[in-house]
Amino acid sequence: MPSQNLEYPKQPFSTVNRYNNRASYSLQQIHQIINTTHFLNVSFVDPDSPYPVSIPMIGHMGSFDRPSADTGDVLDLYLHGYISSRLLNLSRNHGSSSPPDGGADQTAQPGGGSNGNSSTKSGLPVTVAATHVDGLVLALTPNNHSYNYRSATLFGRAAAVADPAEKQYAMRLITDAVVPDRWRQSRVPPTKGEMASTGLLRVTIEAGSAKIRSGMPGDERFDLENAEVTGRVWTGVVPVWSAMGDPMPGPDNKVEHVPGYITDFVKDGNSWAKETALEQATKTMKPKGKTED
Amino acid sequence: MPSQNLEYPKQPFSTVNRYNNRASYSLQQIHQIINTTHFLNVSFVDPDSPYPVSIPMIGHMGSFDRPSADTGDVLDLYLHGYISSRLLNLSRNHGSSSPPDGGADQTAQPGGGSNGNSSTKSGLPVTVAATHVDGLVLALTPNNHSYNYRSATLFGRAAAVADPAEKQYAMRLITDAVVPDRWRQSRVPPTKGEMASTGLLRVTIEAGSAKIRSGMPGDERFDLENAEVTGRVWTGVVPVWSAMGDPMPGPDNKVEHVPGYITDFVKDGNSWAKETALEQATKTMKPKGKTED
Repeated sequence: MPSQNLEYPKQPFSTVNRYNNRASYSLQQIHQIINTTHFLNVSFVDPDSPYPVSIPMIGHMGSFDRPSADTGDVLDLYLHGYISSRLLNLSRNHGSSSPPDGGADQTAQPGGGSNGNSSTKSGLPVTVAATHVDGLVLALTPNNHSYNYRSATLFGRAAAVADPAEKQYAMRLITDAVVPDRWRQSRVPPTKGEMASTGLLRVTIEAGSAKIRSGMPGDERFDLENAEVTGRVWTGVVPVWSAMGDPMPGPDNKVEHVPGYITDFVKDGNSWAKETALEQATKTMKPKGKTED
Repeated sequence: MPSQNLEYPKQPFSTVNRYNNRASYSLQQIHQIINTTHFLNVSFVDPDSPYPVSIPMIGHMGSFDRPSADTGDVLDLYLHGYISSRLLNLSRNHGSSSPPDGGADQTAQPGGGSNGNSSTKSGLPVTVAATHVDGLVLALTPNNHSYNYRSATLFGRAAAVADPAEKQYAMRLITDAVVPDRWRQSRVPPTKGEMASTGLLRVTIEAGSAKIRSGMPGDERFDLENAEVTGRVWTGVVPVWSAMGDPMPGPDNKVEHVPGYITDFVKDGNSWAKETALEQATKTMKPKGKTED
């Protein structure tokens, strides 16, 4: 399946209007941004407050029905954490055109996840944002200053995961997203108490978009032709990335050497993050107005 | 003024409920987190969509009326960017108990900013979130895995800045937040066209909170007494911080050497970010249930 070609449909709430030459709707590109940031910003409407709730959470894209799916396939987002049952209940019929199925709890029906064919629209509408800052873009004038960044936003319906098998799938997915292979290397399986005390949410995605700025600063001819200005104002990019340091053992640690799967992850993660920031600094943007590469 | 002691009032929407031993309402602490992240996540309700709008923006705390105010004082948040005038207009009377003053544009009244005495509550309600990830906390069991982090949330009303003097104050505040002293070192003042094309928002803050996790992993006695588990599972913290690389000159740059104010900023910023992550890894949390240090 040529999954790298899939795109999210453009909805009124998901379409990038300003600087739309920076926009992408590619599942591959959006899911990759979501999967490589340390945290996601999850926001949703609280009917009792004028302010949306906005909280950092840990999450990862996955498919319980088809665990071998690629990053560019249709996937669900799994989030680690609780959202109060009051809000999940309140949201149950929000925006739904079908009658509520009385008596069920607030979790979505099993199998309602990855198939992209959810007609009931139950669950709490959440907006999930992930942002990599790749560089500070320093131009001749404050107005042309910018950031290089890769940001992604997903729009979907969140429901608590109740099925123990799906819950354990999501726990492993998220643990291995913190450090690859960490699940297998830690004390598993979780006890019944641990399973019960862990909150996991499945978000069925309705739409998504990414917005990316890369490259060097651009200035007006007016300033570029002013030798006094160009002679004193340095212009370029200060690359930015998320770095990891040497692992620091805790007071209860009994393992003498840091295992290779952790040191490799730190080394490879740092190289990838730095290289990406440097690449983004020199990568040319497609010009405004064009919609294809 | 002992500004470091000021706290935001606890509102229903701003009170941290889960892990409230990690909560802080200190203006100093919250504003410092806001001012040291590269970007802020701004979310607000769109009445036409079940999903809140959630976008990364650049911003900084400041006071136009009292520019010399400290980080821990009552301040406004200035954001760089546009929010559609449709939404700003829609929000004008949202939640307001006073009648609209007909004929005025959608900006707040001058002086309605820093005094903390805004009775009209005009402006778009926005939730602003800033998050530093300080480390990956690797415990014996997946359940006790965590992140070290410092996150802050502000709740306030956003209005477009119209007064040219306040606009230029905010432009300078935000430019100098990207790289200290950058405003003075670039081509200023902005032209009339640059002033007109720059969107700036002032957020009058109603409440705020911070949530901080620091320190090493904690595990259950059950696992700590299991030699098979402690003998093979490494536990500790992988510190995480935002790093900056060597400045990369752009194709139009004519300044041979990177100026000292930029190289110093990169060097000092990297040291501060790394030291903070290492300090947070070894800093003990206050125990659950206690509300004071």
